[in-house]
Amino acid sequence: MTNTESKPGPMTGLMMDESLLISRQIEFAARFHGQVEVVTRTVEGPIQRSTWAEVARRSRQLAHALLDLGIKAGDRVATIAWNTQRHLELYFAVSGIGAVLHTINPRLPLDQLRYVADHAEDKALFFDLTFAKLAQFLAAQGTSLEHFVALTDAAHLDAAGPVPGVRDYETLLLGKPTDFAWPELDERSASSLCYTSGTSGNPKGVLYSHRSTVLHSYAAAMSDSLGISSHDVTLPVVPMFHVNAWGVPYAAAMVGSKLVLPGPGLDGKNLLELIESEKVTSLLGVPTVWLALLNHLNAVGRKLTTVEKVTIGGSACPPSMIETFEREHGARVLHAWGMTETSPLGTVNVLLPKHQDLDHAGQLAVKSKQGRPIFGIDLRLVDDDGVVQPHDGLTSGHLQVRGPWVASAYFKRDVDETHRDGWFFTGDIATLDPDGYMQITDRSKDVIKSGGEWVSSIDVENAAMAHPAVAQAAAIGVAHTKWQERPLLIVVPAAGKTLDKAELMAFLETRLVKWWLPDAIEVIDALPLGATGKVLKRELRERFAHYRLD
Amino acid sequence: MTNTESKPGPMTGLMMDESLLISRQIEFAARFHGQVEVVTRTVEGPIQRSTWAEVARRSRQLAHALLDLGIKAGDRVATIAWNTQRHLELYFAVSGIGAVLHTINPRLPLDQLRYVADHAEDKALFFDLTFAKLAQFLAAQGTSLEHFVALTDAAHLDAAGPVPGVRDYETLLLGKPTDFAWPELDERSASSLCYTSGTSGNPKGVLYSHRSTVLHSYAAAMSDSLGISSHDVTLPVVPMFHVNAWGVPYAAAMVGSKLVLPGPGLDGKNLLELIESEKVTSLLGVPTVWLALLNHLNAVGRKLTTVEKVTIGGSACPPSMIETFEREHGARVLHAWGMTETSPLGTVNVLLPKHQDLDHAGQLAVKSKQGRPIFGIDLRLVDDDGVVQPHDGLTSGHLQVRGPWVASAYFKRDVDETHRDGWFFTGDIATLDPDGYMQITDRSKDVIKSGGEWVSSIDVENAAMAHPAVAQAAAIGVAHTKWQERPLLIVVPAAGKTLDKAELMAFLETRLVKWWLPDAIEVIDALPLGATGKVLKRELRERFAHYRLD
Repeated sequence: MTNTESKPGPMTGLMMDESLLISRQIEFAARFHGQVEVVTRTVEGPIQRSTWAEVARRSRQLAHALLDLGIKAGDRVATIAWNTQRHLELYFAVSGIGAVLHTINPRLPLDQLRYVADHAEDKALFFDLTFAKLAQFLAAQGTSLEHFVALTDAAHLDAAGPVPGVRDYETLLLGKPTDFAWPELDERSASSLCYTSGTSGNPKGVLYSHRSTVLHSYAAAMSDSLGISSHDVTLPVVPMFHVNAWGVPYAAAMVGSKLVLPGPGLDGKNLLELIESEKVTSLLGVPTVWLALLNHLNAVGRKLTTVEKVTIGGSACPPSMIETFEREHGARVLHAWGMTETSPLGTVNVLLPKHQDLDHAGQLAVKSKQGRPIFGIDLRLVDDDGVVQPHDGLTSGHLQVRGPWVASAYFKRDVDETHRDGWFFTGDIATLDPDGYMQITDRSKDVIKSGGEWVSSIDVENAAMAHPAVAQAAAIGVAHTKWQERPLLIVVPAAGKTLDKAELMAFLETRLVKWWLPDAIEVIDALPLGATGKVLKRELRERFAHYRLD
Repeated sequence: MTNTESKPGPMTGLMMDESLLISRQIEFAARFHGQVEVVTRTVEGPIQRSTWAEVARRSRQLAHALLDLGIKAGDRVATIAWNTQRHLELYFAVSGIGAVLHTINPRLPLDQLRYVADHAEDKALFFDLTFAKLAQFLAAQGTSLEHFVALTDAAHLDAAGPVPGVRDYETLLLGKPTDFAWPELDERSASSLCYTSGTSGNPKGVLYSHRSTVLHSYAAAMSDSLGISSHDVTLPVVPMFHVNAWGVPYAAAMVGSKLVLPGPGLDGKNLLELIESEKVTSLLGVPTVWLALLNHLNAVGRKLTTVEKVTIGGSACPPSMIETFEREHGARVLHAWGMTETSPLGTVNVLLPKHQDLDHAGQLAVKSKQGRPIFGIDLRLVDDDGVVQPHDGLTSGHLQVRGPWVASAYFKRDVDETHRDGWFFTGDIATLDPDGYMQITDRSKDVIKSGGEWVSSIDVENAAMAHPAVAQAAAIGVAHTKWQERPLLIVVPAAGKTLDKAELMAFLETRLVKWWLPDAIEVIDALPLGATGKVLKRELRERFAHYRLD
């Protein structure tokens, strides 16, 4: 072979044409940090200690088992499972053989559970015993599912209950060869499938590729991003059924981070025990789980002693939560933003050198923004007419995003209005400042339209959350004769506290401009939450639909 | 468009198909960290202050200018230039329009300079005034060069001397539009070309692609790798004519690091001044430049006050240098390994959590290794017969490497014995330990073969360098009747020090096993250095070819 370049025009570089594949991540882990630990709180109870080398060996055994079941490249294999070592093995083995890992959110209503299994045409289901009832439900429905595997051993299989042909995971792996030649796939092949659990309509499937997943893993390991590294002991509380646990399993394999998987133990007590015993340095999850952890820490009078950083995303993080982690527990908060459609990493909030001289309040103001885009992600703002808006930190607009780990369409759906001009329409309202910091001021559908101006429901909520007697807050627009809409603030009191509405309103007056102040405050016992822990404002709007402010 | 999946078999993911392009890096820099500074010590003299936004604007102007000169996609555009803002603009504009940036090492002998310009079929040459003589030489040779541009302004153009049709860079840019629509290239298109200046034969060209460059940039920004970030003030002393300055210009644009470019001021005094005045936190370069900086610091009795990390590669870093930076200057040393053929990042040395409890000597032993591979890079060891060797930290073998930023062949050359079985043969002898740390023990051609065993010339040199009276050391094999070869140690005394050979030998006896001890020591004034600052052992072997040890 001679590489003489004779023809005119563009040339191809002479670099090795290696595909970006998920199987390379687990094999890299086995070769270069095989002794690093992977620790799981199992569904059966005990703590299970393993290593990346063993996860790789078992992933190869699982690859053989999947092929023996008749799973082919392109087939969908579903999981309903916690964050555990077995789920981790499924991440690498299913994608590794060219099949598609469909991680199902167990909190979906049954009709949507049925819908996603049907829509994905799942061929096999791997489920934790916790979710045996869901497996039984799907087995009784006559879906495309041919194989049911309980993520347990033979001794615990009985707990799976009446699921026809069910077998246990450990027996499935038993005796399989521990070596496997992973296929050289096209890097654009589908690797995993995750449905967004929107608040209305049927869930929509995002179909990730090997390429998007590996590029996203590099992004997650960047120093200015999540910075996942060999130095970290990483505990993803964000579930592996939620946007691939933000890509943590892949990135951890890539860099050789010790991985601590909490299984079903997501309450404050179980988390604290695992964090302290495994010397966890890096936590990742949504605000609601941290609320539970912080409440538990407060109740038992303890501090986190090993945690260096807490990555918070999924919904806007209240500034008061950032303060509590940083001041009381010595843990740096990384505020991040993303969506199922963005793999999910879009922006991460890291302070710049210029912010080092700011006082505490000034730094907190920067940290409360969603952060700067990671290279690969491009952001822009457009108004209602699609006109691009400036990055001045003041002008808000509809946030659009593009990049190699952003969805181009939904699985088996026509391209809709969310994908136009090569940009994905996020449904968020945001600002972008000259340093690249993006701040979400609202969801497009949640923004409160008062007299032709927009009131940010999130800003009103954050102001309320700063009050010590408020545990949770939601602001919604309520119809108003003169102003079209005006804000109604709905609050849940902190445990053991009594809320004085007048006193809370006086508190808000010191924090919000006058026309953003809620016209009324309602106190309720709990906010309605969706399958991913987000507040269902649609339900609140229905409940308070006949509320009158004028 | 409907994405219904009807055909059986593998599926393609539904993620945006965005190419990995160098032009996206500079546009990202302009959009999201446009205000971050780019500072240059100019060839003309003054310090020039700019920003990423301005570098982007001028890169777009340069793109217009290149097209106006008739440069087309695939054409090679050569530079002979220091690390400056103008060179940085060439990095983005030349590759951005689809042409190929050929960075020429000004230290090449004239016959090789002529060879690479001819072999690359360069169409234009951009040169710093420092190198006017080289431009004049090439202009007089009748090469393929059609355009000569001096990297200066109209006021200084006279200094370019007799170069037919020469013009100045600033006039070339004058009045060009500041916006430009970068072409959507295939990411596998060639982006830049760098010739290895081997110690024998003609230089060989490595042809990088947009894909390899962008993936390499992600690798450079990983927390476990160089960790280039927005937090850093980065000063690459490694030249932009040497393996793309280790990819720093691209990675810095990607993350928004402040970039400080030292121009021709690479001596200790100029470097120290720039480091302190710009508050540089991150330095990158080869051991020989650090030797000059450390000697200057020592001579003037000063310490580095702002530097947090020093990345050292290009040749093995003596442990004594790591100690000096860490103990005297409070700067963490990142020992890295790579080659022109590996873009160059291959391995980076970061301590693992398990090493935190080691004592100083134990940590230094780990830090003296070349480090662990970055995901994307795969390493293996083979013996003389090509049999793969274990990762036990003891067995040495020929080091082979593969990955998406490793060369698959040399430009316009037949694939040779360095590219076999999909692996690149590095020409290094190394060990790999179970944690993934690679340690180069020698070059294949430098290893000293004594009685069927290998003596590592590098280990002998490091032992000698630890002696306070030794400035530089080289160990070579000299013919020996009984043992085939035995080590001869050649040393250069430290400034103002006198070397006592017997005392040095006694010193070595405490640090080397008996059969690795040199049979003789020779003291010379200076070691012969190649174009990239590496010791030319071939010349030493020729000079001492008739030396007799028996």
